[in-house]
Amino acid sequence: MMERVDIAIIGTGPAGLSAAITAVIRNKKILLLGDRDLSEKLKKAHEIQNYLGFPAISGEDLAAAFQDHIDRMGITITEKRITAIYAMGKYFALQAGEEMLEASAVILATGVVQGKPLPGENEYLGRGVSYCATCDAPLYRGKRTAVVGYSPKEEREAAFLSEVCSEVLYFPMYKDILSLPDSVRVIREKVTGVEKLPEAMRVLTEAGAYETDGVFVLREAIAPGQLVPGLQTEGAHVTVDLNMAASLPGVFACGDIAGMPYQYIKAAGQGNIAALSAVNYLDKQRV
Amino acid sequence: MMERVDIAIIGTGPAGLSAAITAVIRNKKILLLGDRDLSEKLKKAHEIQNYLGFPAISGEDLAAAFQDHIDRMGITITEKRITAIYAMGKYFALQAGEEMLEASAVILATGVVQGKPLPGENEYLGRGVSYCATCDAPLYRGKRTAVVGYSPKEEREAAFLSEVCSEVLYFPMYKDILSLPDSVRVIREKVTGVEKLPEAMRVLTEAGAYETDGVFVLREAIAPGQLVPGLQTEGAHVTVDLNMAASLPGVFACGDIAGMPYQYIKAAGQGNIAALSAVNYLDKQRV
Repeated sequence: MMERVDIAIIGTGPAGLSAAITAVIRNKKILLLGDRDLSEKLKKAHEIQNYLGFPAISGEDLAAAFQDHIDRMGITITEKRITAIYAMGKYFALQAGEEMLEASAVILATGVVQGKPLPGENEYLGRGVSYCATCDAPLYRGKRTAVVGYSPKEEREAAFLSEVCSEVLYFPMYKDILSLPDSVRVIREKVTGVEKLPEAMRVLTEAGAYETDGVFVLREAIAPGQLVPGLQTEGAHVTVDLNMAASLPGVFACGDIAGMPYQYIKAAGQGNIAALSAVNYLDKQRV
Repeated sequence: MMERVDIAIIGTGPAGLSAAITAVIRNKKILLLGDRDLSEKLKKAHEIQNYLGFPAISGEDLAAAFQDHIDRMGITITEKRITAIYAMGKYFALQAGEEMLEASAVILATGVVQGKPLPGENEYLGRGVSYCATCDAPLYRGKRTAVVGYSPKEEREAAFLSEVCSEVLYFPMYKDILSLPDSVRVIREKVTGVEKLPEAMRVLTEAGAYETDGVFVLREAIAPGQLVPGLQTEGAHVTVDLNMAASLPGVFACGDIAGMPYQYIKAAGQGNIAALSAVNYLDKQRV
């Protein structure tokens, strides 16, 4: 068990990074969870014109400036995928694979889930549908699995599953496959839903149906209501107030997950507010 | 009369500049009103550690980056002091000295008034107390005036008054006088209030009382309730929603004037939101 941190920050886009630097300046022990590559969306941005101070900068250069900023402050990113966050009263338990992490406050900066959940996805989550290959692979040792992957990153997860499962079907929800072992069977058909059969699961596509034992739906971000049970949401967004406080005390949100507009400077500004609000929350808890 | 602009942005700190660049990207005609030196507070900041992308930067260098950004976008600053903004139904009238400007929407980014108004200031505003030397100097031609100046910038106003008034008393509310003509009498006593006599005004200080005909109270920012009659405020702040919309349709606020925390990156983020909300407002008006 890792030591309990003051603030767990989920997400390494501008919102999460901004929250991290402000929390560290305020002497809080943080755990910054996300991707060492920061944000794929940011890095792919051709040109950003309205991040004040950087006229007409590429996403890659802006990401490099962000990386330099956290490097100089000694902030490191922990590459763990958080699949659930539970409010335990005085702290939060964060599920990262089979590991449980602990934090006194949580800042959600995961970005927003693009599009709606698949039909059947919410219904069968935890009963045949999983968001985490690392966590649930042991359940499917020697069995058949299917992966609905929303970005090339998920290919690693499929490759891992192919080491323990008897069959892995891979449904890419994007264009170019980067790298998959031959043992993974790629099916280029748009997934339209997930069904439960008496003894198995079924992935439905525009072109057919595929029987399997477990379905992994792997996205960049998990819908906030799924990530934090009990959290008030509005569509894909966490309901927040002007202090970026969510409906559960000790939970804050910033950036795209906290609502429109989806803008880098807005995300960075909200990350700052969320961090200072989390600091205030922790200071009050201590009294 | 100047042509009516889409959006008048009042203030040239990070909030106003961020609003300006986003509004211009969205093809709106803007009027950015403030100080060609941007923000005195920003330029004096020794080191800013949490403006994401600029690790440990001086206020002066950050201001230079902001200046470069607006320069490259061809955004210019109009140096007029706005003393009142009136909602006229389909547009806003902005009082700048004796001139009236017009805008379809307004973004307030003036920063926050430090400290409380002087006792008597609100009570006698427009009846012996003025916020604008340029506007009201003609009323005091050949008469006695007193200036309560909160920054060295106000010395220019006092010098101007000394050209038309029979006497100018200057009460500096800061340390070092930069430059004043000999015709201005400097009184280094802390001002504690303003009173109205039957035929004159009186400036009260810790050490005494000074009779005069008109009192000019000159600050960086005017309290938002004074600036925009009818606007809902909470103390020194404009009441806003998550879209940075204020209580009057078409009025938006961002940065320090929109509430705590007082942080540069938060101000820039809110400026972006305010600009996009103003764009949405204008688009709806057009229908």
